[in-house]
Amino acid sequence: MNHAQRLLAFAGAAALCLVARAEPSTGPLLGFTPDNSAAQLKLEATYDAQLNPADLRGWLEQMAAEPNHVGTPHDKANAEFTLAKFKEWGWDARLEVFQVLYPTPKSVTLELVAPTRFTAKLHEPAIAGDRTSANTKDALPPYNAYGADGDVTAELVYVNQGMPDDYKELERHGISVKGRIVIARYGGGWRGLKPKLAYEHGAVGCLIYSDPKDDGYGLGDVYPKGGQRPADGVQRGSVADMPLYPGDPLTPGIGATADAKRLKIEDAKTILKIPVLPISYGDAQPLLAALDGTVVPPGWRGALPLTYHFGPGPAKVRLAISSDWSLKPIYNVIAFLSGSEHPDEWVLRGNHRDGWVFGAWDPLSGHIAMMAEAKAIGALAKQGWKPKRTLVYCSWDGEEPGLLGSTEWAEAHAEELQRKAVLYINSDTNTRGFLNPSGSHAFQELVNQVAGSVRDPQTGVSVLARLRARLQVDAAKPGASEDDKELAQLAAAGSVPIAALGSGSDFTPFLQHLTLATLNLDFSGEEQQDGVYHSIYDSFDHYDRFGDPGYHYGVALAQVIGRAMLRTADADVLPLQFKDTAATIGRYTTEVHKLLDALRSATEQKNKLLEQNAYVLAADPTQTYVPPARDSAVPFLNFAPLDNAVTRLTQSASSVDALLASAPVELAHMESSQRLELDSLLQGMEAAFGHAPGLPGREWFKHTIYAPGLLTGYGVKTLPGVREALEDRRWAEAEQYIGVTAGALNTYSDRLDRIATLLRQAPPKK
Amino acid sequence: MNHAQRLLAFAGAAALCLVARAEPSTGPLLGFTPDNSAAQLKLEATYDAQLNPADLRGWLEQMAAEPNHVGTPHDKANAEFTLAKFKEWGWDARLEVFQVLYPTPKSVTLELVAPTRFTAKLHEPAIAGDRTSANTKDALPPYNAYGADGDVTAELVYVNQGMPDDYKELERHGISVKGRIVIARYGGGWRGLKPKLAYEHGAVGCLIYSDPKDDGYGLGDVYPKGGQRPADGVQRGSVADMPLYPGDPLTPGIGATADAKRLKIEDAKTILKIPVLPISYGDAQPLLAALDGTVVPPGWRGALPLTYHFGPGPAKVRLAISSDWSLKPIYNVIAFLSGSEHPDEWVLRGNHRDGWVFGAWDPLSGHIAMMAEAKAIGALAKQGWKPKRTLVYCSWDGEEPGLLGSTEWAEAHAEELQRKAVLYINSDTNTRGFLNPSGSHAFQELVNQVAGSVRDPQTGVSVLARLRARLQVDAAKPGASEDDKELAQLAAAGSVPIAALGSGSDFTPFLQHLTLATLNLDFSGEEQQDGVYHSIYDSFDHYDRFGDPGYHYGVALAQVIGRAMLRTADADVLPLQFKDTAATIGRYTTEVHKLLDALRSATEQKNKLLEQNAYVLAADPTQTYVPPARDSAVPFLNFAPLDNAVTRLTQSASSVDALLASAPVELAHMESSQRLELDSLLQGMEAAFGHAPGLPGREWFKHTIYAPGLLTGYGVKTLPGVREALEDRRWAEAEQYIGVTAGALNTYSDRLDRIATLLRQAPPKK
Repeated sequence: MNHAQRLLAFAGAAALCLVARAEPSTGPLLGFTPDNSAAQLKLEATYDAQLNPADLRGWLEQMAAEPNHVGTPHDKANAEFTLAKFKEWGWDARLEVFQVLYPTPKSVTLELVAPTRFTAKLHEPAIAGDRTSANTKDALPPYNAYGADGDVTAELVYVNQGMPDDYKELERHGISVKGRIVIARYGGGWRGLKPKLAYEHGAVGCLIYSDPKDDGYGLGDVYPKGGQRPADGVQRGSVADMPLYPGDPLTPGIGATADAKRLKIEDAKTILKIPVLPISYGDAQPLLAALDGTVVPPGWRGALPLTYHFGPGPAKVRLAISSDWSLKPIYNVIAFLSGSEHPDEWVLRGNHRDGWVFGAWDPLSGHIAMMAEAKAIGALAKQGWKPKRTLVYCSWDGEEPGLLGSTEWAEAHAEELQRKAVLYINSDTNTRGFLNPSGSHAFQELVNQVAGSVRDPQTGVSVLARLRARLQVDAAKPGASEDDKELAQLAAAGSVPIAALGSGSDFTPFLQHLTLATLNLDFSGEEQQDGVYHSIYDSFDHYDRFGDPGYHYGVALAQVIGRAMLRTADADVLPLQFKDTAATIGRYTTEVHKLLDALRSATEQKNKLLEQNAYVLAADPTQTYVPPARDSAVPFLNFAPLDNAVTRLTQSASSVDALLASAPVELAHMESSQRLELDSLLQGMEAAFGHAPGLPGREWFKHTIYAPGLLTGYGVKTLPGVREALEDRRWAEAEQYIGVTAGALNTYSDRLDRIATLLRQAPPKK
Repeated sequence: MNHAQRLLAFAGAAALCLVARAEPSTGPLLGFTPDNSAAQLKLEATYDAQLNPADLRGWLEQMAAEPNHVGTPHDKANAEFTLAKFKEWGWDARLEVFQVLYPTPKSVTLELVAPTRFTAKLHEPAIAGDRTSANTKDALPPYNAYGADGDVTAELVYVNQGMPDDYKELERHGISVKGRIVIARYGGGWRGLKPKLAYEHGAVGCLIYSDPKDDGYGLGDVYPKGGQRPADGVQRGSVADMPLYPGDPLTPGIGATADAKRLKIEDAKTILKIPVLPISYGDAQPLLAALDGTVVPPGWRGALPLTYHFGPGPAKVRLAISSDWSLKPIYNVIAFLSGSEHPDEWVLRGNHRDGWVFGAWDPLSGHIAMMAEAKAIGALAKQGWKPKRTLVYCSWDGEEPGLLGSTEWAEAHAEELQRKAVLYINSDTNTRGFLNPSGSHAFQELVNQVAGSVRDPQTGVSVLARLRARLQVDAAKPGASEDDKELAQLAAAGSVPIAALGSGSDFTPFLQHLTLATLNLDFSGEEQQDGVYHSIYDSFDHYDRFGDPGYHYGVALAQVIGRAMLRTADADVLPLQFKDTAATIGRYTTEVHKLLDALRSATEQKNKLLEQNAYVLAADPTQTYVPPARDSAVPFLNFAPLDNAVTRLTQSASSVDALLASAPVELAHMESSQRLELDSLLQGMEAAFGHAPGLPGREWFKHTIYAPGLLTGYGVKTLPGVREALEDRRWAEAEQYIGVTAGALNTYSDRLDRIATLLRQAPPKK
């Protein structure tokens, strides 16, 4: 059969697939002419037919068979296996190797030395029924990457989750962590902030433990009966100061090639200054039980069978860590399938491959979906199909310690990527449940169209319809937040909003450093259960039972992302819609207005209560109580530049969207120089949101709309220059970034207006 | 010294006391002429000087030395001791004895019979340092009074707190309790509702346990290190269906005198139909650990170190209870001090005396404050002072099993009380902390004036200022409810609102059956800690450390209630202010409007989600899920009668308050027949809120404004006829009770208008 015949052979299957759609297609696919749209749907049916859950299961079992963190033989073996597979499937694939600072523990000790003695196990034993849990020859003991070496002995203080509000609470009780070792439970914000904030408050060491309330028996049955964290399970993880910059700490902003110019370790700002160690709740329980002093407030209590106290002491602990600080190699696999019409427009796709130990959930469950896509696309190519734009598939190494593989690659190829990339789609852990779409809002409509066309494996409706149902039901629950209600209303009225991206996976260098359009897509929410995160029990046997039994959501993810990749690659005009961007930034702008108002009224309220001595009168006089400090009054700021820029963006976006609707047909007849200009404008739209000097105090982060919060780590801060300045009461900086952000929006609008001019000059539809 | 000299001798002390007041007195006391107001303040100083914390401690130690529940020798001994003391202090005191049904356990067995075997201890062992904990010769084993006898063996189901929403959650999971035994944790609503609702859902037995999250190690250190409930501590308590009627189950509506006509036990509607037993978390843990099935939702999880499951089974338990159902005597002590001017206007004061075992906290901590008042008032009388109105002090027996002493006495003396009582002030457990004022809102201003004049023992400001500070600080906390914010605003703007009374102590027969003005006053909030509620460890040694060390809040309560009693007894005109009643009922009316609107929008939302199949799509298909049933649309109702009645009440109250301000001076010259009519109108104002046929399905409860909720038990439902009909979607009944309630308000306004007419006819101020 030739190409056309092959496509026709799948038309029946495509029609069948359409019947199951909850979202009836009301017109051609975004960016396509009607004819090409129909052809694309047929192509997708062919694509779907290549996806086989048995493939995913086989790849997962093989790749998660041995420890595969940076530096292990199996990490390299998995790179070579992936490379070989990509080549087998017809891709132009290569290894790209970088040399990164990746410290590994040589010796680790944790002891309770007073009032009684206890030596922490710091060991995750083998569990019956989990075949790899005994296979630990190449595994490292549980540790946090990029903490400092040290040997400290000091009183212990419990700091809850170790976030800024927790230190405020400690201050209210007159408790200092200075010269002490803190013990924080996981949760509430990114792990790396816990030792950083502890250090900034004077602590000399930091323990982080997994409370059973958060992912142990408090949540569900523990492994192996259920999937939750057993008493000896430990959450490893990076504590590099990634909100400053991710990637190799020694090569910020440049690729960590063999000959790169490197910082000295002591000059690397993302390496912490105090030792930090993750521990199990089995090891934490004797330490917490040995604390005394005031009983903690209700929100600080975990699920251990004891009364939680702040300390300090009488518990005293010794924490000693020494590490190997040598450079290690990381292996990215990069695979190309060249575009037939626009080879220099790249549609990128990535998922990392390195785990903390076996990494079956994190990251291999997403990696196997990506492999399924690559295999199916390879099959299409073998049948004669070619993408119009170039597809680039990336298997990243070293994500866990600090997004190393993606960041070093993005930094090394920055100029080419900024010139060529039209979209980067990321995934990571993937499990049974609901689609979680997030990223650049110009692609929101594409995501909706795609998600409306993929069938949920369990319910038969589209994954979009299922997500919409959950948003509606969540918003109807008692205690639903105003945000939940607004999201549900938007979803009910039209397209389901996609979320904004903070950090925590390999999209960050693309979105926030290079300012390229980015999406992150995966399924989750019905995993049974994810309580083995970053532990030795994140294994094939565990995922096979609790992650995605049958691998149907692996296939669904390959369908969602595969469609998004293929439509972006094949569209006549890039499948962008700008009104979602304008509306979303309009919402963010309303939020920062409200934030300032809320700060003002909270400040007034607090200062009034201080004047009335109300805090002291309301406190128990038998307990130490230190009232909060008085804050200066909150000024009014000039939001006008931002408000005006949003108004303009809304109008410009609306005009361009209207013109783009008919563009796919008309552009075939456009003059080629104009077509080139138009394509170039559409390719790099997101760049308009970039601000070259970066965000305050962290120039690596260039995006003015989306950033990980300096004090949230993974959690996003939208309009970050404005929002973080307000939150931190830096009023002048807030006004400065109102201007910077307005400038970025106006640059975006300028670009939209030029696009509109070009489209208006296009010949009318025949 | 004569009376005047004695008063003068205390003038200095009174002035000193005034200096410490946070609330400067801006005019005469409510209801007093300026001269009499000044004299009253001097009297209060004399009164204060009689209060001695050592008295309180001594009485507590003696009265809590032996088990003192109904039927014990020490219960009778405490009655006789109280009687003797009242007499010694110059009161005309007597014992009033009733014969009540009070079942006591003869044998109790609880066993886990599958999948493993375990026999519950059902025993609270002696604790070192708690001297009475070994003194259990007369103690009963832990039990729930008025559960049924029975011997049942069945599968166990965990029902969280066993409240209506919990059964809805079970329905969503397809779980029935029919033919099973439920295990509920304490909390969320009144204990007696747990077995009642379990029975109504088909259960054959009910266990109620104290989860350590709620009053054990989850809240603070357990006894004896701290004050919280130890593993073997059990919360006893009544499970009679008191929202139907409290008091002796065999004599509803009449006094349980020796010759009273009694129901047969099987006809008494307040006795439960299934066996029910309270157990410790030590005994509960093996039962809960033996449950399997679906993991419960987050809100259902306690603090035991296990994963909570719904069941049913595989845990199977046997519960066997048999009881002695004979009548037992209860001993009320009633003490009179006759009024000099209005002997037939009674100001009543009560606190119960019986505990579940030793009862140091509950009730003796309140009882000793009441004794201190009686002693101090007696001393005033011995100095020659006489109250203008009659004071009646009541030491109730049998409160714990069902408000027996107060209810039987109130029923026996109903006609006289309705004719004579001007106010009943109740207290119960009293501890270190903040004043909790609640009751009839016509006395809100009196409570504010009194609380503004009593110094908080710890901070030196008035107990009113301290309460106001806490309301402000609570309302400023993140997540504060709209109710909290409204309360704080009202408190900041003027008088601190007093709460509405539900049930749970001896005020209920006075307020809700006889429709008499009632207050409940006590301190709490800083007790360290109350986790021994209704257990053997509610002891003198425990209270002395954790309840109110130094007994300063016992003295403060005697000051607050003593002032309220003396001012009400001595006022020239009863110290009433009606605008607070009008404003409060106005708020309640707004609430029921909003309730109907909220029901309508929730119904619309639910039905829409059902139409879209959203609940099913949002649920995990691997778990049983039963969507909620569709509800019929919520109609609009005619609130006009109620709204108009509130408007009228507001105007009438405002007029009367203005006239009452000058009344104390003018009334001295009023014609005596008019004065008699006025006094009679003021005495029985609250009666206007009565509705003789009572509330739907529970005629014993007559008050149209305040009632314990049928489905909350202790928790109040304001405008209960309307609110509960709305909540239960009985629309016709809601409209009927809108009319009934409006009628009560109009009767109240009629009375106010007649008062205004009388006051306008009074001679002008000279």
